[in-house]
Amino acid sequence: MAHLLSTSCSIKFSSGCKRYSKPLNQGLEAFPTSFTLQAFKYPLRSLVSQGQKPLRNYTVRATTLPISKEAPPQPSSDTHQTSNEPSKPQRVMVIGGDGYCGWATALHLSNRGYEVAIVDSLIRRYFDHQLGTDSLTPISSIQNRLRCWKSLTGKSIELYVGDICDFEFLSETFQSFEPDAVVHFGEQRSAPYSMIDRSRAVFTQNNNVIGTLNVLFAIKEFREQCHLVKLGTMGEYGTPNIDIEEGYITITHNGRTDTLPYPKQASSFYHLSKVHDSNNIAFTCKAWGIRATDLNQGVVYGVRTDETEMHEELCNRFDYDGVFGTALNRFCVQAAVGHPLTVYGKGGQTRGYLDIRDTVQCVELAIANPAQPGEFLVYNQFTEQFSVNELATLVTKAGEKLGLNVQTITVPNPRVEEEEHYYNAKHTKLVELGLEPHLLSDSLQDSLLNFTIKYKDRVDTKQIMPSVSWRKIGVKPKTITA
Amino acid sequence: MAHLLSTSCSIKFSSGCKRYSKPLNQGLEAFPTSFTLQAFKYPLRSLVSQGQKPLRNYTVRATTLPISKEAPPQPSSDTHQTSNEPSKPQRVMVIGGDGYCGWATALHLSNRGYEVAIVDSLIRRYFDHQLGTDSLTPISSIQNRLRCWKSLTGKSIELYVGDICDFEFLSETFQSFEPDAVVHFGEQRSAPYSMIDRSRAVFTQNNNVIGTLNVLFAIKEFREQCHLVKLGTMGEYGTPNIDIEEGYITITHNGRTDTLPYPKQASSFYHLSKVHDSNNIAFTCKAWGIRATDLNQGVVYGVRTDETEMHEELCNRFDYDGVFGTALNRFCVQAAVGHPLTVYGKGGQTRGYLDIRDTVQCVELAIANPAQPGEFLVYNQFTEQFSVNELATLVTKAGEKLGLNVQTITVPNPRVEEEEHYYNAKHTKLVELGLEPHLLSDSLQDSLLNFTIKYKDRVDTKQIMPSVSWRKIGVKPKTITA
Repeated sequence: MAHLLSTSCSIKFSSGCKRYSKPLNQGLEAFPTSFTLQAFKYPLRSLVSQGQKPLRNYTVRATTLPISKEAPPQPSSDTHQTSNEPSKPQRVMVIGGDGYCGWATALHLSNRGYEVAIVDSLIRRYFDHQLGTDSLTPISSIQNRLRCWKSLTGKSIELYVGDICDFEFLSETFQSFEPDAVVHFGEQRSAPYSMIDRSRAVFTQNNNVIGTLNVLFAIKEFREQCHLVKLGTMGEYGTPNIDIEEGYITITHNGRTDTLPYPKQASSFYHLSKVHDSNNIAFTCKAWGIRATDLNQGVVYGVRTDETEMHEELCNRFDYDGVFGTALNRFCVQAAVGHPLTVYGKGGQTRGYLDIRDTVQCVELAIANPAQPGEFLVYNQFTEQFSVNELATLVTKAGEKLGLNVQTITVPNPRVEEEEHYYNAKHTKLVELGLEPHLLSDSLQDSLLNFTIKYKDRVDTKQIMPSVSWRKIGVKPKTITA
Repeated sequence: MAHLLSTSCSIKFSSGCKRYSKPLNQGLEAFPTSFTLQAFKYPLRSLVSQGQKPLRNYTVRATTLPISKEAPPQPSSDTHQTSNEPSKPQRVMVIGGDGYCGWATALHLSNRGYEVAIVDSLIRRYFDHQLGTDSLTPISSIQNRLRCWKSLTGKSIELYVGDICDFEFLSETFQSFEPDAVVHFGEQRSAPYSMIDRSRAVFTQNNNVIGTLNVLFAIKEFREQCHLVKLGTMGEYGTPNIDIEEGYITITHNGRTDTLPYPKQASSFYHLSKVHDSNNIAFTCKAWGIRATDLNQGVVYGVRTDETEMHEELCNRFDYDGVFGTALNRFCVQAAVGHPLTVYGKGGQTRGYLDIRDTVQCVELAIANPAQPGEFLVYNQFTEQFSVNELATLVTKAGEKLGLNVQTITVPNPRVEEEEHYYNAKHTKLVELGLEPHLLSDSLQDSLLNFTIKYKDRVDTKQIMPSVSWRKIGVKPKTITA
């Protein structure tokens, strides 16, 4: 294992990081005027031995300011920590912590008293450059986000910038941070992106599957009691003609009975990558005693969480484009700018949905109720199910209350999927653990439509229409232009 | 697409390639004294534009001798060939055609009148170098194998040496050979190999999943009517407590019924890679109309087929080592050299088995009965099921008839698997298509034990014991030494 050399530099903290939203319950540290970043780099020996291999990651740890004065978090009763260190905060590594769900989750966990580290390659920002897309909301750099969070709350979130497909990098993060739980959002998460061309399909499966394999190996090697909380997707199940259970189904067949993994029928290379992950994780739970929870998440909507609305520099990203934009977020943007809502095909496609405020709740519940060694828990993480047509109707009605004239058009479905089907997916386990859902009817007008109206001048309508076809994907690299 | 430059060279044909076994039904071409190989290479422009990327493949086409005088094969009634070219031979690309099952299959199909091309990176031979293992049987180079086949039968088998993970290479093979069917054996196929260390686990999943993705893209792009015959494994199913069906299971749940993919519970990174493949293929059948047949093959035993026994230069490989050796082949070698049969754990592990002569039959049946566009056929490809203890008993009894004193010992199970379990896997579909099974009881003594006795002086007993542990796999690269 390569030893780390550390260098340090001081940078001036940008001005203007002040609370602009509702007050915190937590004490606020004095506003720092300067900041010390430690940049960990591989030693020269390593660089030389790697020959032409480019250095693919670097580590920034914003940990030199005084530690938080917050009360330590309450560790889960089921934690593996020994009884002689009961008050030690649980250390949670959030892989993909600069992304849409990851950022909200990292802040939420930090706010709740967990010691948090973000591991992220920042490739999601790079995708925007490649695709010519951008978040509806202006988002700060991860470095500024973390500085702001520190200045507002006194809480440090460590940052490790690198690619988890690079096992040397991942090893260093594990050995440096020593996580008790890993929340793994760090995957290419767009179905259309995975269907742009062959190279994106291959990238998606390679990146997601190998990254997750590396996380499993890192846990086995360095933190065998660490609980993996892995983000899966409801899309793994497809649209079977029977009720969708949470991960497993008990089957009686020819007079015998067994409880088996629920059959999966994923419908994009992205969704398939999550199926592959689930199968790999299940095996390592059985073979190695890994503790894992798979959160089969529905379509997430909304942008504000208690933490991200503390300051505009903490603002989360909000995607509405045809590649990374999820259906409901896109509809709200369309309503705000007077663009017809674009229903793909017949619009009977039904899926589970949840507010991003419930995403962060669910992840915390999963961390607080960890799987036992060798156990593979699977929860369906959504709160309500809607068809696309139902969503369009809801947005239309909410828009009318705000004086918007909302039209709906049907566009040819770029995907290959059932457009009229049975759909009844169970989602009781997280509620049993304590999830208190935010329902769409309560948040659509204020949290979503008013929010998109606020930012409507930033909308680039050229990004809205679907640009990726499931059937036309080819082998030549394709440049998507908005 | 890069255009090919061709160069050619003449080489002397090695002497001694004469029939030594039973006569052929087919006419024998005159023995050639020299041979022309065409070496296709990428053009300079391509090399320059690829910068430092090494040239990873080369193509050898042994196609310049007179074409076979055989009667053309009978194309399947379900072939996509148009009616005005009814007698055109079906062109079958065998990926992994230098391996254990692939070589036997390539020869069998060639013998049956198909136009065959072998696509192989030859990495299986490289694995032997890395692991210090070797086939029980001496095997010739693929080039000599093909020259011998040509000299014996007059039939040319084209050879493309390269890695299907390299899409540029695969594209060239598709556009050059224009296959009507692709038989895909071209994967890392050892469960223990995939469990040696992290790098082998990652290699196995990356190599198998991305290679198969590339094949799917090549079919979509270049040969959309081409039928993919993909080798899966019975190990995808694991050992559920209910009957194993062929690919799909009809489930009635909460009053509703659907036929869904049979739940998979694979137990190594290798077996998991096949599950991932199956899921990816199923999706492309649905989304793109790919025609595919998944052959979930059991454990293959034996070495001789009608074609490989025509000449010793055609001899197939026979693995008995702890990494690539399958259970029954290993037992036969152990019996031949007086090494105790090594039963892992309790020995109640039950699996499906088949003779390699049935492998080649099954693949031909799959080719002759292709899936329709968009259809994903799944067959369980084995003929009998045995527990490890039952195999040990059969080998012991057969060995005694040959005067061998066969002992059995129990060794700690290096795998994580059920050692006593229910197992009843259906395998009727290939029989319905015409498979006439070779049963173990008929072939054990002559085809297997006598064969291993013949080669017993080549046995390296240090290779026999298991050297890979499912639980002890780590992140550091491991050198397996026999």
